[in-house]
Amino acid sequence: MTDLSRLSLNTATTKNLTLAEAVRVAAEAGLPAVGLWRDRVAEAGLENAARIVRDAGLRVSSLCRGGFLTAADPAEQDRAMESNRAAIVEAATLGTSELVMVVGGLGAASAPGGPALPGGDKDIVAARTRVANRIAELAPFAAEHGVRLVLEPLHPIFAADRAVLSTLGQCLDLATDFPPEQVGVVVDTYHVWWDPALRDQIVRAGREGRIASYQVCDWILPLAEDALLSRGFMGDGYIDFPTITRWVSEAGYSGDVEVEIFNQEIWDAPGAETVATMAKRYTELVQPYL
Amino acid sequence: MTDLSRLSLNTATTKNLTLAEAVRVAAEAGLPAVGLWRDRVAEAGLENAARIVRDAGLRVSSLCRGGFLTAADPAEQDRAMESNRAAIVEAATLGTSELVMVVGGLGAASAPGGPALPGGDKDIVAARTRVANRIAELAPFAAEHGVRLVLEPLHPIFAADRAVLSTLGQCLDLATDFPPEQVGVVVDTYHVWWDPALRDQIVRAGREGRIASYQVCDWILPLAEDALLSRGFMGDGYIDFPTITRWVSEAGYSGDVEVEIFNQEIWDAPGAETVATMAKRYTELVQPYL
Repeated sequence: MTDLSRLSLNTATTKNLTLAEAVRVAAEAGLPAVGLWRDRVAEAGLENAARIVRDAGLRVSSLCRGGFLTAADPAEQDRAMESNRAAIVEAATLGTSELVMVVGGLGAASAPGGPALPGGDKDIVAARTRVANRIAELAPFAAEHGVRLVLEPLHPIFAADRAVLSTLGQCLDLATDFPPEQVGVVVDTYHVWWDPALRDQIVRAGREGRIASYQVCDWILPLAEDALLSRGFMGDGYIDFPTITRWVSEAGYSGDVEVEIFNQEIWDAPGAETVATMAKRYTELVQPYL
Repeated sequence: MTDLSRLSLNTATTKNLTLAEAVRVAAEAGLPAVGLWRDRVAEAGLENAARIVRDAGLRVSSLCRGGFLTAADPAEQDRAMESNRAAIVEAATLGTSELVMVVGGLGAASAPGGPALPGGDKDIVAARTRVANRIAELAPFAAEHGVRLVLEPLHPIFAADRAVLSTLGQCLDLATDFPPEQVGVVVDTYHVWWDPALRDQIVRAGREGRIASYQVCDWILPLAEDALLSRGFMGDGYIDFPTITRWVSEAGYSGDVEVEIFNQEIWDAPGAETVATMAKRYTELVQPYL
């Protein structure tokens, strides 16, 4: 029997659809939720986006994404903080308490593809400290809006350019100064499947009440030319979904399961087909273990 | 003042050179050591390879590589064990006590680039257990030959297809059942630079007497089409060499520093030029912090 009552379509999976189109294919497939990206929300307009989701009878499982907090330059920091405050207001307006945070990499260290910039900042320890300080500044504002900052550990392949938070344990260490309703974590199989400490840290995250989102997609090889797009449907790669799903479930997570896949081929396919495939794979490899 | 007294050329950096050619460019540049790969040794013949290095007045800092121990199939396991015993004998013959171990990935899980094989084994926890069991079988044989099995944590980008050991801490956990002269670890900046636990685990590795090798090369972006080749000269990417080198040095490591770079462009360059560049970068970014 098909039970899609916890399956959420993250709009990054259907990148070529507008927010309204993504909501429609999700609703038509019987999904109860969508995870939204800010770019699609901005295109639709914030109030309009909230109404589209509400009118379709769906809930918003999370908003992606805040973050990019590693800049050392004060003006850049100010811009980042302003953007994050806006994201917090957007999450509240959309009716989700979960704002996913991709904290940023060593952006200033090197021109992508080029040689290191002289004086570029390669101090990853300092970058992490800046992230912790900015989270501390944002948390009270988020709390006022009923929004939780959801730290996302990204696969270490992205440590240089996207996120200096690489493991669930590291995110939980950072979260420890805050109540669980202010700072949580996301377990995204793609980013954390390889981690030898994964089970222990999922248990810990559950015990601390911090699992704010469970996202699923597979690690496929060979890597796509743009490594960011090397994600696949559950079952097409190397990840052991039954095992990780069982761990997340045993840790007490009872929320939505978002499918977030960056993959050019999947983006080029019709949205309804994509949602049908993800529902099928979810039903085979994830839902039975929840 | 240039001090190259601890700099070793790993032959993977000059892939297109024969062992004799690599030894010659290393010696001519004033390097005291080479790290050897088994393929170049086999081409030269084991006894001949040992003599070439000896005659040039160099030492062998390590032999790469044993490992690939994750197969579940008994026949494949037997082949792997036989190959590893041969590698141990080779290391001893070449006069190095350090055999670097790349333990293998989830090889059976998926055809590279294709869909998952039905029944493919994606149980990474079980694969790690097989590695631990095989290391336990090999360690006494290695000890008899005066050779240490040197566990190499590989960047998580390689967890699916090359190594289910991804962090220094995980390798040290596995090593803990063995005396430090039987099982050690390598600190390779490229593989571990992103690890939030890096400093603590380097301290631990030093305290336990297990740092068997320090290898340096940089993490560059964008990733090469073959991600394995996305390595660069120190300074060309994102890694903070002074900091990590200081940690390794403070942990008591006093051995050779190998430069091991997989990069098509560097392979295509003349060997003497490659060695000159690596010596220059070593002198700027590594040696002062040893």
